[in-house]
Amino acid sequence: MTDPIKYELGESEIPRTWLNPAADIGEVAPIIDPVSRKPVSFDALAATMAPPLVEQELSTADEFEIPEPVRQHYAKWRCTPLYRARALEQALGTPARIYYKYEGVAPTGSFKPNTAIPQAYYNKLAGKTGLVGETGAGQWGSAVALAAAFFGMAAKVFMVKVSFEQKPYRRTLMETYGATCSASPSTETEAGRTILGERPDHPGSLGTAKSEALQFAFANPDYGYTRGSGLNHVCAHQSVIGQEAIKQMELADDYPDIVVGAAGGGSNLAGLAFPFLRNKLRGGPDLRLIAVEPAACPTLTRGRIAYDHADSQGLTPLFRMHTLGHKFVPPAFHAGGLRAHNIAPMISRAVEDKLMEAVSVRQNDCFEAGVLFARTEGIVPAPESTHAIRGAIDEAIRCREDGTSKAILLGLSGHGDFDLVAYQRYLAGELPDDALSDEVLDFGLASIPALAHV
Amino acid sequence: MTDPIKYELGESEIPRTWLNPAADIGEVAPIIDPVSRKPVSFDALAATMAPPLVEQELSTADEFEIPEPVRQHYAKWRCTPLYRARALEQALGTPARIYYKYEGVAPTGSFKPNTAIPQAYYNKLAGKTGLVGETGAGQWGSAVALAAAFFGMAAKVFMVKVSFEQKPYRRTLMETYGATCSASPSTETEAGRTILGERPDHPGSLGTAKSEALQFAFANPDYGYTRGSGLNHVCAHQSVIGQEAIKQMELADDYPDIVVGAAGGGSNLAGLAFPFLRNKLRGGPDLRLIAVEPAACPTLTRGRIAYDHADSQGLTPLFRMHTLGHKFVPPAFHAGGLRAHNIAPMISRAVEDKLMEAVSVRQNDCFEAGVLFARTEGIVPAPESTHAIRGAIDEAIRCREDGTSKAILLGLSGHGDFDLVAYQRYLAGELPDDALSDEVLDFGLASIPALAHV
Repeated sequence: MTDPIKYELGESEIPRTWLNPAADIGEVAPIIDPVSRKPVSFDALAATMAPPLVEQELSTADEFEIPEPVRQHYAKWRCTPLYRARALEQALGTPARIYYKYEGVAPTGSFKPNTAIPQAYYNKLAGKTGLVGETGAGQWGSAVALAAAFFGMAAKVFMVKVSFEQKPYRRTLMETYGATCSASPSTETEAGRTILGERPDHPGSLGTAKSEALQFAFANPDYGYTRGSGLNHVCAHQSVIGQEAIKQMELADDYPDIVVGAAGGGSNLAGLAFPFLRNKLRGGPDLRLIAVEPAACPTLTRGRIAYDHADSQGLTPLFRMHTLGHKFVPPAFHAGGLRAHNIAPMISRAVEDKLMEAVSVRQNDCFEAGVLFARTEGIVPAPESTHAIRGAIDEAIRCREDGTSKAILLGLSGHGDFDLVAYQRYLAGELPDDALSDEVLDFGLASIPALAHV
Repeated sequence: MTDPIKYELGESEIPRTWLNPAADIGEVAPIIDPVSRKPVSFDALAATMAPPLVEQELSTADEFEIPEPVRQHYAKWRCTPLYRARALEQALGTPARIYYKYEGVAPTGSFKPNTAIPQAYYNKLAGKTGLVGETGAGQWGSAVALAAAFFGMAAKVFMVKVSFEQKPYRRTLMETYGATCSASPSTETEAGRTILGERPDHPGSLGTAKSEALQFAFANPDYGYTRGSGLNHVCAHQSVIGQEAIKQMELADDYPDIVVGAAGGGSNLAGLAFPFLRNKLRGGPDLRLIAVEPAACPTLTRGRIAYDHADSQGLTPLFRMHTLGHKFVPPAFHAGGLRAHNIAPMISRAVEDKLMEAVSVRQNDCFEAGVLFARTEGIVPAPESTHAIRGAIDEAIRCREDGTSKAILLGLSGHGDFDLVAYQRYLAGELPDDALSDEVLDFGLASIPALAHV
């Protein structure tokens, strides 16, 4: 076979450390307590976070050792493959060399278990017997359920009610792993009861689910609260993606000129891109990093850099980051994992410091890219991942027009087997482009707290 | 990492030949024309089969070379991983060493593309511009759609109407690959119109879909008719599974005492088990091969060895094999791929000659095994694959009771991401055990043609 298309690493090559992006992305702005307006203490964070995770969250160390039991569970699907997309290149007629790092081989079909496993491990070490978390489309909830099963822990997931009703299979996946799953808003928590009291037919949101999961954790101290994206330690855990990709690009005897990832909460993009950024900052080859976000939720391209809450109810502390305002509600679109009003502070800072570019793309253009990818490469991508594919294809088309051959590495964060209803609507021509009105944008931006003095 | 759990091979180790089971399983009974009652000719088979496939079907050669373009497409997901199920072993408290060969990493989630790809290749070589096939639950139709996309061919799939309506996601998967999919019985073929004329609300069956796909191929000579299981060449194509598994067991420094697979049409089981059987027949280590079938469709354990049609309408030639009668209709159960009244003649012959054992298991016991597997190993198995898991667990429990440590290799033929409704029903306690009534069994057996003289 003269033209290899897959670059694989054995389980012995699973990384032994997580790279800490805080060691690379300049000074980290402190997390602020919204009441005292002072930096939150270790103990305050430790109220809902296992101590080793708090240490990672606040650390500027270069790297953290991956505990052996975590590596053992990673081995169930890692190292994940890196592919050369030769069939896609051919279909595009581009001189570009397109690579993709595929995280969909994880049991739940996405990159999320990379951090769910260590969060389960550290919470178990801290004496917790259960895990709790919120989920929208179900990727994070599935990963929490899986991690809890691996460590013999209970799992409780609050799932946005409208998804709970529309995506019964995701719920069944969690239940198959042994988790219990509630539609949020529920009557199980004070937050849920309050929301239902105000609006009995509330369809739920990540904000309501997050508030309920947090309150559940406070009310059930045996349960550890888990985080699917955003925080520094979550981005660090995802660095296994980029570390493997660097070794695999070596096997391909190539190095990316461009790394492209979908930008939602930011941790998948951070996991793929930051190890390459570290290389560059420490004397390695230059390259471009590109964050691709939905035009309907343009956090990086139309948001502001400010202190804001990570949830819609204002329960979390304040983080300095790009935000559309914690009351921003994007129009309905299918990339559920890219609907956040905010993004990981590390990604935000990288964009602010011009270490990373950001572009926005429209839903139908993303699904067009996703269908071309499926027909050439075989894998039906998750709607979130189609954003990275769209970004990579646009760069590859530029290469064709310029006659330049660049190496483009995209992050294929997961498969779309659970998202086929979105493809059905796209193929039927029923998918709106979800242009964002100024009114919706302004409403969101107006909810950013006025905290110029922190 | 002291205890490896995954044994992987690079794409350069994809097998270069398919092993022909006809070289191992004694004399092959000829395929009989139901009208002339004489062996069907090469030309008769070539009416619906590309000539190289007819050659493979009738050959007793040891092996067939895998064309390089087929290997290139295989490389998109092969070699597939072989796992040591350490977590499952621990949960069972068994001294047995359990391994599984996982075919669910294929883009469509099962082993089916292993033969869809070469069938597409040979049909394209023969000048066909399209592929046609029938599908029940959707595994085969998805594989045909994928293979057609890879070779730039059109694809037409007749899908059993009740599945078409109950499993819209499988249909969308095929459409995403570019196939067109019709609910069978349809008004598009003479067979479909006849069936609908007799019974307008006919829910469809594999028999109706197969009849329509065959007639479509006759009416559209640009389309090649494809076969998902049963025939010798299909079993040969699947031998990539077992050939890889042999190398991977070497990496594990172990060799199976028992190989267990789910038995439906028989090609997955043949693909995994027959390469090990060849080893044994040619002086290699002895081992047991076990076929596990549903108690509700007990082809090997309660069927007869006789000449029968492979479809319910009697359109195909006659094959000598275990059969429940071509009019046998099993009660509703969720392992759609194990609903055939018949089985590959090669598997049938292996059982007849006591080279392979057969057992039957009940649906709820299979899902119990599937849930335990998901919670320990992470992968939610396809309902079909739970039969192999159940068989392996039963052997592992026997090891625990006997205090013997055997190596058990099971075939994990696919994942269950598209079958979660079945898990939902199991977890809710709503799944019947589908005991088979003597009446249903006798009705089927009575439809076996009386052909004692062939």
